[in-house]
Amino acid sequence: MTLYCALVHHPVRNRGGELSTTAVTTLDVHDIARTARTYGLRGYFVITPVEPQQALVERLLAHWREGGGASRMPERQRALSICRLVPDLQAAIDSIVADTGETPALWATAAAPGITRARHDYAAAREALAQAQGPVLLLFGTGHGLMDATLETAEVLLDPIHGAGDYNHLSVRAAAAITIDRLAGPR
Amino acid sequence: MTLYCALVHHPVRNRGGELSTTAVTTLDVHDIARTARTYGLRGYFVITPVEPQQALVERLLAHWREGGGASRMPERQRALSICRLVPDLQAAIDSIVADTGETPALWATAAAPGITRARHDYAAAREALAQAQGPVLLLFGTGHGLMDATLETAEVLLDPIHGAGDYNHLSVRAAAAITIDRLAGPR
Repeated sequence: MTLYCALVHHPVRNRGGELSTTAVTTLDVHDIARTARTYGLRGYFVITPVEPQQALVERLLAHWREGGGASRMPERQRALSICRLVPDLQAAIDSIVADTGETPALWATAAAPGITRARHDYAAAREALAQAQGPVLLLFGTGHGLMDATLETAEVLLDPIHGAGDYNHLSVRAAAAITIDRLAGPR
Repeated sequence: MTLYCALVHHPVRNRGGELSTTAVTTLDVHDIARTARTYGLRGYFVITPVEPQQALVERLLAHWREGGGASRMPERQRALSICRLVPDLQAAIDSIVADTGETPALWATAAAPGITRARHDYAAAREALAQAQGPVLLLFGTGHGLMDATLETAEVLLDPIHGAGDYNHLSVRAAAAITIDRLAGPR
């Protein structure tokens, strides 16, 4: 398994389904890095094209990788060491090609019920991941999720995460944790 | 299944393993409420004995249940409607007795490797939860986890969540999401 994940802040849907850009939530950087590190992912991309937001993430990463945070909480340094800040999805793909020599397969998660494309359930996706020869990049959308144009480029579209009943509004931090555990956790 | 969960801010361990109290992270209130609501839990207790912290949580809950947040994001209102603020574990237990007429079995999660008591793996715990006659209260510790005295009162002690390798520092938000999905998610 050569798995990467990315948190996309642009392009994503807003509440009305329109193209938008979300602000970076710093806790998303920490939480998903810790989850990715726990499950042996090779990298975690934070994708934002907004320069002041990039500066915020760079400052956060510098603090925890080399600054006061690194000596105070070395386990946080280990998590954030796999985080890479990039301006767009193509830059994440390029970074994986530089790592592995191969273009990653894009896998996407989408809670939006309107999507009619066939989806993988988690058992099938887990099996597909275990057998994948090349790298896989798992995309998570912020806001109200990834745009259709992004979902159309995905080789694998995962089922939305359902619990019990019709309520389905997990935070992206929780959704990423559950998705990665289902795909890559021990069984 | 009559499942509740609680996020404990006191008594918990600090980095050195000593008795301490953590501050409430407001995102924990939101995230774990959304996870609990998604998986059909009956209630989510935020446990803190610190009065200014209680006031913060009360203000947050009022905003999202009855204030501006409730009309703007009704799905957040639905999640936070199951959240109950209590000063200590006994008050959470009393609240469940008032709901169900029964004292809940306490289940605890603990990442601490030093605990020598037998633990349930998730398959066994999932089966036990499905067959439980009475309510179950699942405890999550903030800081560096629940104190031994709390763990000793637990009927079921869950395995720590391992991913791949030796890194095991999930956020409590991610750990709660993964634990609840493993215990109560569809299979």
